[in-house]
Amino acid sequence: MTRRERALAIADGRTLVSADPATVSWLTGHVPDIEWGPSPFSAPPFVIVDPAGAIRLVCSEDEAGGLAAEVEAITFPGFALEDADRRARSAELALSLLHGRVAGELASLPGPLARVELDDVGDALQRARAVKDPDEIDGILAAIAIADVGQAAARAALRTGITELELWTETRAAMETAAGGRLPVLADFVTGPRTGEIGGPPTGRRIEEGDLLLVDLVPRVGGYWGDSCATVATAEPPSAVREAHQRALEALAEAKAAIRPGANAGDIDAIARAHLSFPHHTGHGIGLTTHEQPRIVPGNDLQLEPGMVIALEPGTYAEDWGLRVEHVVLVTADGCDTLSRHDLSL
Amino acid sequence: MTRRERALAIADGRTLVSADPATVSWLTGHVPDIEWGPSPFSAPPFVIVDPAGAIRLVCSEDEAGGLAAEVEAITFPGFALEDADRRARSAELALSLLHGRVAGELASLPGPLARVELDDVGDALQRARAVKDPDEIDGILAAIAIADVGQAAARAALRTGITELELWTETRAAMETAAGGRLPVLADFVTGPRTGEIGGPPTGRRIEEGDLLLVDLVPRVGGYWGDSCATVATAEPPSAVREAHQRALEALAEAKAAIRPGANAGDIDAIARAHLSFPHHTGHGIGLTTHEQPRIVPGNDLQLEPGMVIALEPGTYAEDWGLRVEHVVLVTADGCDTLSRHDLSL
Repeated sequence: MTRRERALAIADGRTLVSADPATVSWLTGHVPDIEWGPSPFSAPPFVIVDPAGAIRLVCSEDEAGGLAAEVEAITFPGFALEDADRRARSAELALSLLHGRVAGELASLPGPLARVELDDVGDALQRARAVKDPDEIDGILAAIAIADVGQAAARAALRTGITELELWTETRAAMETAAGGRLPVLADFVTGPRTGEIGGPPTGRRIEEGDLLLVDLVPRVGGYWGDSCATVATAEPPSAVREAHQRALEALAEAKAAIRPGANAGDIDAIARAHLSFPHHTGHGIGLTTHEQPRIVPGNDLQLEPGMVIALEPGTYAEDWGLRVEHVVLVTADGCDTLSRHDLSL
Repeated sequence: MTRRERALAIADGRTLVSADPATVSWLTGHVPDIEWGPSPFSAPPFVIVDPAGAIRLVCSEDEAGGLAAEVEAITFPGFALEDADRRARSAELALSLLHGRVAGELASLPGPLARVELDDVGDALQRARAVKDPDEIDGILAAIAIADVGQAAARAALRTGITELELWTETRAAMETAAGGRLPVLADFVTGPRTGEIGGPPTGRRIEEGDLLLVDLVPRVGGYWGDSCATVATAEPPSAVREAHQRALEALAEAKAAIRPGANAGDIDAIARAHLSFPHHTGHGIGLTTHEQPRIVPGNDLQLEPGMVIALEPGTYAEDWGLRVEHVVLVTADGCDTLSRHDLSL
């Protein structure tokens, strides 16, 4: 089933409305600007699917390009001299498109839209988004390829004496050069003792001989997110670190080996945790968000399905050091394919 | 009056609620992460001010640090193994804090909160935010200082043969090094013929002899935004360009000279447009957003007040070249002070 068909099945004869940015992207191809927070010249877009299957995007006139075929943009003024109330205008347009019974993603709906009588189908939409279409897998692969570039750049540029921020600049530049433009990038980028804190942003700290670099790169390319993590040593590490790294690789390999349609998300989590302990998830879905179902966490009885894309990231964290490895896999008909290509060696 | 006192005056005996990120920051000191879009481990925070003046922030437990004194954080689970519905939990907490009559920023309120009966005071809050307190001016000055660093870096690193993205990387790195960490930065960063398009992001285009660089840097530091623009030539430009640049500087100088309490925003706009024509605003307020009142646009009869902070940015755009200059000013008791320190020469 296409995404539209899946949305229509959830709507079940009702008009569907959502302002969740990921759901909007999923149904329309709209890629929101995000790096600067809410735009003063826009308002969060709405997607509206009527029972006959027409998909409409209510958005600023500046955002009406690059949409999926058959999506109609219903626009309000964008960057302009006029001082239009864009949030109010956007809501008015969306309201004008709601007819008959309405199903919506209630938690996403601002102001006037949330006052409409509707059935909340947010959970169903988020479950539907967990299984990716082929074009979505292509999108995720493109983002992972950029993450791979960043991982290779960070590894190649790692040296003592430079600051985390300098290494980060080289890493980000490599990704943006490969992509041909600026990218949103969520990252853990820590060295030395701060690797024990699981993650954090780069700082002015100078890298010292013997440090570990924990580098987790999460770039967004064309609406889809990649994810990746590796830990790199500046010198031969103590045996405890090397052994822990080996256990992390084993945890990753065994979790991958257990992934297949019908496998239980919580069971995959337990397999990884048999090798080492860590205070975070073993993994999570990625796609139009950085973290979604299937969540690979204790007790999640969700069953994996072909087309799910999962980042697996076992690690371990001590008082003054920590490490993590991460690969992204695609659930296939009988197992999984590893989509990540970056080096996981210490 | 303090910000809290101004909010209480607007609330006028009602409980006040907003989920506008700028209003939340204004009343609580909370600085939201924005570079990565909505976090899967959070939900937009709410600020709630009760009629007695208690300020509460409903936020993820990960966001409860760094708040203004006397702000109480009411938290829901943040980054965690549990699959809590954070948007629902956040709304429940906010609802539990609403008593009696409610005044709210309706357009900002998601889902269940927007269903509460309330008086919409969004416009009044946004007008109140246009006049800055001394600590807010300090915040804006810190951001402008970083923009100044970026302007100097772009000017110093500009050379033929490198790409826009390479120059951008050096520029951003200078700002992040000066700030000691990653920063959200909105930017126009165009060279050559694309300067005629007003703005746009950096690309892989190589800079050529004779190109102009139009560089508009808008970094956020600690919640407050700076703004700045300059146009720099790689070689002596044609006389038409130099003359247009001179007119832009004159427009900026005369607009500055006319700024004082009681001056009309639309009149300031007209003064700048007497020197050259451009399709965008002459200027705008900055602070917790990149563009707010006072908007320096035709017909805006808002009167300027001491404490307003205004970015003025006249420019001109031809078929295959364009230029813009921008300084930020603070409206004082009898005129304005220029807060920007960057070089505006061509």
